[in-house]
Amino acid sequence: MLLPEIQTPAIVVDLDRMDANIRRAAEYTRQHGLALRPHVKTHKSPRVARLQMAAGAVGLTCATPREAEVMQDVADDLLVAYPPVDPGRAMRVASLTAPRVTVALDSAEAIARMGEAARAAGRVVGVYIEMDLGMHRVGVTGADAAVALGRVAADTPSLEFSGLAFYPGHVRQAVPEQDAALREISDALGAAIDAFERAGLKPPVVSGGSTPTLWRSHEIAGVTEIRPGTSVYNDRTTAAVGACAWEDCALTVLATVVSTAVPGQAVIDAGTKSLGREPIRGAAGEGFGALLDRSEVTVRTMSEEHGILDLSRSDWRPRVGDRVRVVPNHVCIVVHLFDEVIGMREGVQVERWPVAARGR
Amino acid sequence: MLLPEIQTPAIVVDLDRMDANIRRAAEYTRQHGLALRPHVKTHKSPRVARLQMAAGAVGLTCATPREAEVMQDVADDLLVAYPPVDPGRAMRVASLTAPRVTVALDSAEAIARMGEAARAAGRVVGVYIEMDLGMHRVGVTGADAAVALGRVAADTPSLEFSGLAFYPGHVRQAVPEQDAALREISDALGAAIDAFERAGLKPPVVSGGSTPTLWRSHEIAGVTEIRPGTSVYNDRTTAAVGACAWEDCALTVLATVVSTAVPGQAVIDAGTKSLGREPIRGAAGEGFGALLDRSEVTVRTMSEEHGILDLSRSDWRPRVGDRVRVVPNHVCIVVHLFDEVIGMREGVQVERWPVAARGR
Repeated sequence: MLLPEIQTPAIVVDLDRMDANIRRAAEYTRQHGLALRPHVKTHKSPRVARLQMAAGAVGLTCATPREAEVMQDVADDLLVAYPPVDPGRAMRVASLTAPRVTVALDSAEAIARMGEAARAAGRVVGVYIEMDLGMHRVGVTGADAAVALGRVAADTPSLEFSGLAFYPGHVRQAVPEQDAALREISDALGAAIDAFERAGLKPPVVSGGSTPTLWRSHEIAGVTEIRPGTSVYNDRTTAAVGACAWEDCALTVLATVVSTAVPGQAVIDAGTKSLGREPIRGAAGEGFGALLDRSEVTVRTMSEEHGILDLSRSDWRPRVGDRVRVVPNHVCIVVHLFDEVIGMREGVQVERWPVAARGR
Repeated sequence: MLLPEIQTPAIVVDLDRMDANIRRAAEYTRQHGLALRPHVKTHKSPRVARLQMAAGAVGLTCATPREAEVMQDVADDLLVAYPPVDPGRAMRVASLTAPRVTVALDSAEAIARMGEAARAAGRVVGVYIEMDLGMHRVGVTGADAAVALGRVAADTPSLEFSGLAFYPGHVRQAVPEQDAALREISDALGAAIDAFERAGLKPPVVSGGSTPTLWRSHEIAGVTEIRPGTSVYNDRTTAAVGACAWEDCALTVLATVVSTAVPGQAVIDAGTKSLGREPIRGAAGEGFGALLDRSEVTVRTMSEEHGILDLSRSDWRPRVGDRVRVVPNHVCIVVHLFDEVIGMREGVQVERWPVAARGR
């Protein structure tokens, strides 16, 4: 099936680009002696996770119980990088059949709940202590508090202290300007690792890494594992901050021009319910996505099912029925909005796969 | 099941409030002699659509082919208020088994495609000519161009000229300040209706109406039908602009506090993948949602699965494991992010229903 025949809106993945993105991350981590544990939140698809494992990933990172339940068919070693606080969620994590399950936690309450669920399920769950190294979202502040929590985990029979985790998601500036932020993380992380070692809790794993900082992960002293998500597909933000080339963007939203009735604009059938409403962060860039083949044309405003193209920087004047491919600002949000992905090579659909780990 | 036992994040509908919202819209339209054709994009649920029909709706409004395919089990009279431009989409609309199907169109291309699909399916499809009365999204500009399109539809054997449609979605200001905008719409609409009548194409239906302007629809001269969506559940924006009371908000996102590790804030397990990233428009209001029981506490920032509560205007200090109910800024986006709705009365879950018309 050719692109003009696919019903829109749809998400389309260029498989050659995706393959290259997976290979590139695997080669980088191999070269620097880092373990690669890709975050599946971006693709939510066993089809893609299998390729990541085959390329050399040590395991997978998940955010939701649903992601972990689906991904245990693909990998024996799962990290749930999210505190499973409510009892139902903790029990679902403890009930995973994967041989190795680790969770990242940042409170005594969460450790107690996870420990109780693991005990009830008759298994041992690993614990990373989540530290806040500048993002100010979750994570323990300061090495002493982190060591104290690590001790609680180590002393809980159904849990195992497995290491430290942090997420440098606040390092959003473009790649060349990241130096100071990465130095701060390195310093704080070094102090934390020292404190854990002094307490007799040498962390077996130090897990960090985001897509914007992906290619500089080896500069953060102490990191042994990284968890990039977005890099499998990449998106407009990743390209804008310089962590990928525009030609590395593998996923686009295929859309049809449905109206040119209002002069000076064109309306496509991809709005907030297909593209999300994510701004570009960490670099300049207006709008909610840009056309793959005409990146000067952006999605200026949206309604739920309408995207209005900004044609002011382009001579191109589309007609009703024309097809466009939009590179979204934030691909993880877009995948969550669709049930199915179309895989293509050289402009031809070669497969479809479900976004199997969508939902709750 | 009580709220504390429901796994989060989840969307929960207060059925008493929803019932009252449905009744209120039906009573208003009855009182003013308007036909009510609720837009199902908000709930995407036959469960809810049946109540709307039972309350007196003349039919339903849909945006996507999927919505129409699911809703034809509920109503015999469907409006697809979206140009089905790509051939697959036009064929799906033409293939609906509902006895009466109407589409809103704004271009000769879309009329030609819909006419061809209806001819191939061996049926007659009604056409509303969509006019732009100030929103500048879709719709023909000016009465002459609209009449010309109406003529094309009337002259196409597989189509029927069924009326005019417009969407006053640009009238976002708070209810008391809407006067000038509504007068402008009234004037433009009056001129258009006159032009159609002079051309011998008296519009059988004049279809308008949004939730922010819902209770003033009767002030727009010429309107015979309205298509409110959001009003079935309402949301923080609807309350902020004064088109509903806070106590009319029927849908909330139930979430659990998962981290209080970073001082001065609390993190809930509802982020962009549960709440969307919709701003309040048309009225003041920060953040992406507010707590039902403490509306001074808002969701300040989000990641995909994290929402950070702004506690700066509250003395309340939640603990890990506490439950909250978030009234989202834009409920239509939130429903699209979930597969299932929990219906409750007086704090107890009494049913669950699928968001059956989600997806494509």
